[in-house]
Amino acid sequence: MKYPMYELIEKKKHGKVLTEDEIRDMILAYTAGEVPDYQMSAMLMAIWFKGMTDKETADLTLAMADSGDKLDLSVIKGTKLDKHSTGGIGDKTSLIVMPVLAALGVPTAKMSGRGLGFTGGTIDKLESIPGLRSEFSEEEFKDIVQKIGFIDAAQTAELAPADKLLYALRDVTATIDSIPLIASSIMSKKLAAGADRIVLDVKCGTGAFMQDVDSARELARQMIRIGDLTGRKVVAVLSDMNEPLGHAVGNRLEVMEALEVLSGGGEERLRHLCEKISTEMLQLSDQARPTPEEAGKAVREVLDSGKALELFRTYVTVAGGDVSFLDDLKPRAEYQEEVKADSDGYLVCRNASEVGLISVLLGAGRAKKGDAIDPEAGIWFHKKPGDAVTKGDVIATIHTGKQEALPEAVRRLKEVCPVRPEREAGRPVIYEILR
Amino acid sequence: MKYPMYELIEKKKHGKVLTEDEIRDMILAYTAGEVPDYQMSAMLMAIWFKGMTDKETADLTLAMADSGDKLDLSVIKGTKLDKHSTGGIGDKTSLIVMPVLAALGVPTAKMSGRGLGFTGGTIDKLESIPGLRSEFSEEEFKDIVQKIGFIDAAQTAELAPADKLLYALRDVTATIDSIPLIASSIMSKKLAAGADRIVLDVKCGTGAFMQDVDSARELARQMIRIGDLTGRKVVAVLSDMNEPLGHAVGNRLEVMEALEVLSGGGEERLRHLCEKISTEMLQLSDQARPTPEEAGKAVREVLDSGKALELFRTYVTVAGGDVSFLDDLKPRAEYQEEVKADSDGYLVCRNASEVGLISVLLGAGRAKKGDAIDPEAGIWFHKKPGDAVTKGDVIATIHTGKQEALPEAVRRLKEVCPVRPEREAGRPVIYEILR
Repeated sequence: MKYPMYELIEKKKHGKVLTEDEIRDMILAYTAGEVPDYQMSAMLMAIWFKGMTDKETADLTLAMADSGDKLDLSVIKGTKLDKHSTGGIGDKTSLIVMPVLAALGVPTAKMSGRGLGFTGGTIDKLESIPGLRSEFSEEEFKDIVQKIGFIDAAQTAELAPADKLLYALRDVTATIDSIPLIASSIMSKKLAAGADRIVLDVKCGTGAFMQDVDSARELARQMIRIGDLTGRKVVAVLSDMNEPLGHAVGNRLEVMEALEVLSGGGEERLRHLCEKISTEMLQLSDQARPTPEEAGKAVREVLDSGKALELFRTYVTVAGGDVSFLDDLKPRAEYQEEVKADSDGYLVCRNASEVGLISVLLGAGRAKKGDAIDPEAGIWFHKKPGDAVTKGDVIATIHTGKQEALPEAVRRLKEVCPVRPEREAGRPVIYEILR
Repeated sequence: MKYPMYELIEKKKHGKVLTEDEIRDMILAYTAGEVPDYQMSAMLMAIWFKGMTDKETADLTLAMADSGDKLDLSVIKGTKLDKHSTGGIGDKTSLIVMPVLAALGVPTAKMSGRGLGFTGGTIDKLESIPGLRSEFSEEEFKDIVQKIGFIDAAQTAELAPADKLLYALRDVTATIDSIPLIASSIMSKKLAAGADRIVLDVKCGTGAFMQDVDSARELARQMIRIGDLTGRKVVAVLSDMNEPLGHAVGNRLEVMEALEVLSGGGEERLRHLCEKISTEMLQLSDQARPTPEEAGKAVREVLDSGKALELFRTYVTVAGGDVSFLDDLKPRAEYQEEVKADSDGYLVCRNASEVGLISVLLGAGRAKKGDAIDPEAGIWFHKKPGDAVTKGDVIATIHTGKQEALPEAVRRLKEVCPVRPEREAGRPVIYEILR
């Protein structure tokens, strides 16, 4: 290392600004194993307290993006577009947005991780379709993008390994919740994945890392600024995560719900968010429409016409999945239990991450890396927060292969989604869009 | 570990107070190797930012004191007295204070480390006397204390190993300069060394860790408070370290100077500080005099009468040293070079630690643990800051076995101790005494 790590910690501790050269040196040395974890964790804690300037955050992002492989997106001519969600419960937007864009002539190719903790992963959702593969050779990857116009593959290349190492260290040293560290972590992966223009779905609420709109806005602002400083155009959609998105939580249930939207229907909030994200992406693409209204109209057209659905079905076939399965989509979990309202009133969701945790209990998610998941498991909400319910109404159906998990799941679901006599004020699905 | 380390870091990061139980659990688990360094360094950085309450600091002190061996001082009947200096340049007070107290019937027994960096260690100074040993069996240790009334032995027992581990970690993670961590580190060693009552010589100035009186006072206050909370009486003498203490810097040169004070003479500031520390210790002892004035008088008597000197000589003999050597003490370094004033004016010391670093360059100290030191090497200041000098006057004599070090040493010494036309305002040797 050119710069003694000790001195960099000392600088940051006193709130001084690290130079581009210092940050790059530190990240490369850390990735190479030349900086011990105990020095890096002291640095991370100093950053937690003192923050980073936008320039430092952008320098950190680039250093992490440059620390490993980069995705080769040369198969896509022109602008490389990407979409990223900061993670939430029941978030199946990628399943909808990518075929919509492909239907509009805008190719997208991304590598996604699998889900961990109470947020699901798009790859897990796709793989709930029997036979569907998510790991492809380089040739297959290019072929699929050229043929269909989108791909969502499991991450194989080692994109931004510095971020992976740093994230693991932050996870055990209580330094996750630092906005510049979160912003640079997300953006480093996007940059390594070859994106030129990015629409970020920044979730905020009880089911998201950012609990309130102010901190979500600050995270969005920092990521947009990283984009400015690294020559990427970034648009951030601040969306609500105080309740699960749509009706379904759980992998195959979410595919079912995505198909509803791709068929021109679907739950209102979910469809609205998908339309907005698609519209923003379309406007960032080389196929941009003259006005946002025209772009929105184009998006709705490919949903309502079934054009996007058709591309999704083709993708399933090309990826080795059983497309006939899509024609007979229905819940198939061994145990299905209805949760009913104990009184008249209005449904409330007190904590969306608790809903995610319940779904993990049912088998829909991983408590730790490498755990097996049950594609059938999850929760389907027949009622949404704010809906009027009458005693005895079915609020939700719980799906699981683990009978023993049912009593706790029902109890906890009633606790976190109670029926209250007063209707709470509703929340918009999109708080604001930052450009 | 009973408490997840992650949660303790999270607590401290948000400025919450750790309980006694949490602190003890953390320190014991860390000493046992069950808490990784990267978590502890994040905790240390969080403490650097958020501090600790007095109670937390005292709990940390006790947990570290209890982490290893404890010194058995049962050979001393009644109150166990100790003295500690936070470290400075030319600090030979222990060589004087311990025989003074022994001459007054107050036994003291301590284990000291060797010097590291630009501050010297008492053991190194004692061992500059040919033949003198500093490592003793338990029997010898007790014998010497009983016969002579004092001992200053090299540390053999593993006192406060948690502190040793934490200090090493702080040293490489820029978390040394935290007052609660410094206070608990010092006090944990004193408690493990069996002290009931302690006089702390808290140095402040350019040659000390605490650069100004305010931070030295805060460190002193915290150590006194740790004493309160752990049932130990602590008195802190805030003394000046903007210039070396006395004339001599370097091991054998400092023994020579200590003998001057023990013979009833010596440089004024050095003697004053030794008298005050001895007086405070005497007043804390079971031999306390009715008034501080009487205590001070008793101290001066054993210095002027040669009683303390006699005990020092006996100690040298009993510890295997060549006492005849003390009768013919003179500088014996191979190279001795006088540094002369280039102009008329007044001597200034710009930075006492630079004087310490020059003495390391000459061979008087260790740049790193385990380095050999040259007992003859050092600097004797014939003039002290504030003294009027005439061009050509000898300001200091440099002593070294390394001829090649002389040009740089002379240049740097002239730079750090220049002669200036105006006399700077003098500083007292003692700023204040806190009880």
